[in-house]
Amino acid sequence: MISIEKSSQTKIDKTDFDNLTFGQVFTDHMMISDFKDGEWHEPVIKPYGPLSIDPSARVFHYGQAVFEGMKAYKDKDEKIWMFRPEQNFERINASSKRLAIPEFPKDFFFNGLETLLKLEKDWIKQGFGNSLYIRPFVIATEAGVSASPAKEYKFMIICSPAQSYYSGEVRVKFSDKFSRAADGGVGFAKAAGNYGAQFYPTNLAKEEGYQQIVWTDANSHEYLEEAGTMNIFFRIGDKLITAPISDRILDGVTRKSVIALAERMNIPMEVRKVTVQEILEAADSGNLKEMFGSGTATVINPITGFGNKGKNYDLPKLEDSYAHAFKDTLMKIQYNEAEDPFGWRYEVKE
Amino acid sequence: MISIEKSSQTKIDKTDFDNLTFGQVFTDHMMISDFKDGEWHEPVIKPYGPLSIDPSARVFHYGQAVFEGMKAYKDKDEKIWMFRPEQNFERINASSKRLAIPEFPKDFFFNGLETLLKLEKDWIKQGFGNSLYIRPFVIATEAGVSASPAKEYKFMIICSPAQSYYSGEVRVKFSDKFSRAADGGVGFAKAAGNYGAQFYPTNLAKEEGYQQIVWTDANSHEYLEEAGTMNIFFRIGDKLITAPISDRILDGVTRKSVIALAERMNIPMEVRKVTVQEILEAADSGNLKEMFGSGTATVINPITGFGNKGKNYDLPKLEDSYAHAFKDTLMKIQYNEAEDPFGWRYEVKE
Repeated sequence: MISIEKSSQTKIDKTDFDNLTFGQVFTDHMMISDFKDGEWHEPVIKPYGPLSIDPSARVFHYGQAVFEGMKAYKDKDEKIWMFRPEQNFERINASSKRLAIPEFPKDFFFNGLETLLKLEKDWIKQGFGNSLYIRPFVIATEAGVSASPAKEYKFMIICSPAQSYYSGEVRVKFSDKFSRAADGGVGFAKAAGNYGAQFYPTNLAKEEGYQQIVWTDANSHEYLEEAGTMNIFFRIGDKLITAPISDRILDGVTRKSVIALAERMNIPMEVRKVTVQEILEAADSGNLKEMFGSGTATVINPITGFGNKGKNYDLPKLEDSYAHAFKDTLMKIQYNEAEDPFGWRYEVKE
Repeated sequence: MISIEKSSQTKIDKTDFDNLTFGQVFTDHMMISDFKDGEWHEPVIKPYGPLSIDPSARVFHYGQAVFEGMKAYKDKDEKIWMFRPEQNFERINASSKRLAIPEFPKDFFFNGLETLLKLEKDWIKQGFGNSLYIRPFVIATEAGVSASPAKEYKFMIICSPAQSYYSGEVRVKFSDKFSRAADGGVGFAKAAGNYGAQFYPTNLAKEEGYQQIVWTDANSHEYLEEAGTMNIFFRIGDKLITAPISDRILDGVTRKSVIALAERMNIPMEVRKVTVQEILEAADSGNLKEMFGSGTATVINPITGFGNKGKNYDLPKLEDSYAHAFKDTLMKIQYNEAEDPFGWRYEVKE
């Protein structure tokens, strides 16, 4: 049994669920588990509130921190669903391992998560596009500035209500100078440091009129790898292409779901290195039909155009876009409005 | 005038200055400046204690955090000295810029730092090797998990008394798989995420009997770049070699001081790419005389041997080592026991 300390008041009545900014409002409770004396301790649920952490804690100085992003959905019968949560559980432990953080026990993760979701179920609103964004994360809390792995950590889960994520027109810039990850580095992990490192290059791209960067390989900048916080897909003719995962590229849950769906939908799918050159040629010849990003927050994010070394390209507006088909199919599975041939849905039972 | 809230008690009497572990004990006060409403606010000095931070703060999720390492020394006349602090000030702002953190004003930095040091002067012990380790750092404190630069930060300085850093015998492993930084990445910055990312590969190296990793370029692993938290120097015959700084390699203050001293001491110095191959050949022919790391915490750290792809090499024990000469010369300058031809010393005046 997970200990629950209930909040004496709720913020839910003050929350405008029709005007949510992503990741700004958090629910009334949070899950915390402490790693101390060599082991993870049973999670507890407490009122959402500030953490008291020593200024010398490793997370502040050495970036020992990883996270995940997940969502919970409510169907027409008030049932609560998640989407492939075991993938996020496995990935946060893979991220932790690379950051020398002790792996978290599976039963603590699922018991803590489900207990929290049931407690916060009123925060999950019905309606296609509404969801509860779930943020599990681990931070190194041990005091002391020696550059070595901490012996104390917090594994936490916080939740934020979300609406359908519409990011407006997304134009991307192919990176020809900055990089996101090195071979043999931590690019595949959801390590906190990977994200802060993208802000400055992304700001520069924004000044040039782009919303995100498509990261290329650090060595040659000839291969297209990942877009900001999303994996990226290219459609040339009827063929869909995405880069293979590597130690530089995040093994996205939405990415692998799109790949599986493509096969089922008889869409020719190639998982292989994608060159800048072939995309430019396809754009010039009119064969580049679509580009889109995939990720938990956005599901599928269509890209309307891109820039490469100062030259801009527009993508056509398609009636029968793959992006739209994948988004619709994925969301219908997530909201229990369609068959789930892959067994991806996960019910949070009362 | 910087506002000072004095601690009601001191930990100094309970501190065993003869048995200090690096970075574990902190002094009674800390400096804090908040960035809010678009500007840095005048630093304040408060009793050292835990920070209260929202669990959704950017530093926990996106690693927007940078730091510096500096030291203060007390000479025989009780005067307090620092070593090239303007270099650390410039570097923390260079690191901040790359992490999309607003740069910190120079007067806030030096006023805050000096006020803090004067308040904590009893923590700086006389004696060659004793020092006060100073840790300026910046963390993104704004609440909210959207992946974009924070609008709120804390710039802090905490201090920890230190003894001469003796790390025991240091054997290093040349990295042939893992990497520290990508071209176009954040390797040159003292970004928190760069350090946590090294812990796991370093743990694996430790299991093989090495204390640190010498990082090679991510692309070919043919060039030797940096060692753990230090820059690295190689002596072949009488010639000293170190890699040039780049966007992957930290512009170390001790590193650049060694390069300047080498010229003055008529030691042939080459700043150029160093190949694994030439070091192996020099080791085989008996021409590899020394390897040493340089950094603020350790000053100069002699390396006693190295491993490359499973083969181990020992370095000779020299009577007239460069490592010893540099360490002695640097420390005498730092402790005001020798001439300071470069104007590196900086007095913290009452």
